[in-house]
Amino acid sequence: MKLTYSGKTKDVYQLEDGHVLLKFKDDVTGEDGVFDPGANTVGLTIEGAGKSGLRMTQYFFEKLAEQQVPTHYIDADLDKVTMTVKPATVFGSGLEVICRFRAVGSFLRRYGKYCKEGRALDAFVEVTLKDDERQDPPISKDALAQLGILTRDEYDILEELTKKISELVKFEMTQKGLDLYDIKLEFGRDSEGNIMLIDEISGGNMRVYQGDKYVEPMELETILFS
Amino acid sequence: MKLTYSGKTKDVYQLEDGHVLLKFKDDVTGEDGVFDPGANTVGLTIEGAGKSGLRMTQYFFEKLAEQQVPTHYIDADLDKVTMTVKPATVFGSGLEVICRFRAVGSFLRRYGKYCKEGRALDAFVEVTLKDDERQDPPISKDALAQLGILTRDEYDILEELTKKISELVKFEMTQKGLDLYDIKLEFGRDSEGNIMLIDEISGGNMRVYQGDKYVEPMELETILFS
Repeated sequence: MKLTYSGKTKDVYQLEDGHVLLKFKDDVTGEDGVFDPGANTVGLTIEGAGKSGLRMTQYFFEKLAEQQVPTHYIDADLDKVTMTVKPATVFGSGLEVICRFRAVGSFLRRYGKYCKEGRALDAFVEVTLKDDERQDPPISKDALAQLGILTRDEYDILEELTKKISELVKFEMTQKGLDLYDIKLEFGRDSEGNIMLIDEISGGNMRVYQGDKYVEPMELETILFS
Repeated sequence: MKLTYSGKTKDVYQLEDGHVLLKFKDDVTGEDGVFDPGANTVGLTIEGAGKSGLRMTQYFFEKLAEQQVPTHYIDADLDKVTMTVKPATVFGSGLEVICRFRAVGSFLRRYGKYCKEGRALDAFVEVTLKDDERQDPPISKDALAQLGILTRDEYDILEELTKKISELVKFEMTQKGLDLYDIKLEFGRDSEGNIMLIDEISGGNMRVYQGDKYVEPMELETILFS
C-alpha cells in the first residue's frame, strides 16, 4: 500500500483493491499544547488518541449505516488503528461543515455582540473552507454556488445530512448525560458522485460538556463506552 | 435641533417635526490616508467630500423613489450639505448589506483560494454585522434568524431590495462607461415596521472602476454628473 497523504491527524494510504486505508495518529489539533477542535495546527500528541478517535468513529459510522446515512466507512481495525473507506473526492479543496447546538468557539468570537457563551442554537449549520492561510473562512450557500464549489441542491443535501448526523451524535451523548455543543463534519463524493460523510466522528472534532465542564476527547470515549 | 449621534462620516440631528437631519462631513473611511469603503476608521478628510456624497445620494434616492423602492429620503439641501430623512430603527446594532459584482476587498481576502481579483460575481449579496471590535463579521441568513436580528422573511426582502438597488446603481454607472464592483447598503425599519433603505448611496460606499483604474469617490461624482 502507498502513502498518498499525511494529514494533521491521519495518514492516508491507497490500497490495491481501490479502497483507502486511514491510519489514525496520536496527534490532535490545538495550540500551545491545548486541545482545540477548531484549530488548524497540531497542538499536542496524546498516547492512545488515535485509537480512541477510531473507536468512536467506528461506533458512530456503524450507527449511521443502520440509519441509511451514506458514509465512506467500510470497516475498522482497532489493533492496527486503521479504518478502510471508499475513495472520495472532496468539494473544491475541502470543506468543513459545522453544526452548532451552543454558541462557543469561532461562532462566539464572531457574534459575541449578540450572544453569551453557551447560548442554545437550533442545530445551526455553517460551512467553512479548508484554507489554513485564510483561517478557514465561513462561506455561504450562495458564495459556494457562485464559486462553483457546491451547487445549491448539493448544499441542501449537505445541510440535511449534517443535521441528521449531528442530532444522532447529540442523542447518543444525551444518553450518557453529556451535552454536545458543536461538531465538525466533512463530506465528499463517492465514485458515482453521491454525497457521503467522510473523515471521522470523534472527540477530536466536537465539543462536549458534562454540566459546566468541558470533556477532553479521550475522557469522552471513556464515558461514552462506560 | 439636537445632535443625537456623531458618526464617522455624518452627524445626526433630531428635528422637532419628528424627522431626522443628516449632516454630511468631509471625513471618509480608510486607513493611513488612503480611502477604503470597507474600512472601519476615518482615514482622511477631503474638502467637498460631504457635498459630493450628498449630491450622489440625492440623485440615487430620487431615482429609487421613481422605482417605488422604499427609502428614508425626504429631501436634501446641497448648500447646507444636509439631508432630511424619516426616522428609522436598525436591525440589532446595525447591519451592512453588500452586493458584489466583482471579487475584490474582503470577499477576495476570504475566498482568494477560489477566485482571482476582479472575477465576475452575479449580484452576490452578503450581510455583515456593524461591530468594529469584531471587524464587521459576515453573518448568514440562518444565524441572523437564530440570533433574533432578522427573520428569514425579512432577510429575503433585504436581499431582493439590495439586488434591485444595486442593479439600478450599476446601470447608471454603465451609462457613463463605469463598472460597479461592489456596493454597501444599510437598511432599517420605518415607524410602521416596513423595511427601507437608509444611510447614503455615494462614492464612499462603493467601488467603481473605469477600465482597470479605480475611480476615487469625488472623481466618480464628477464623471457621473458630466
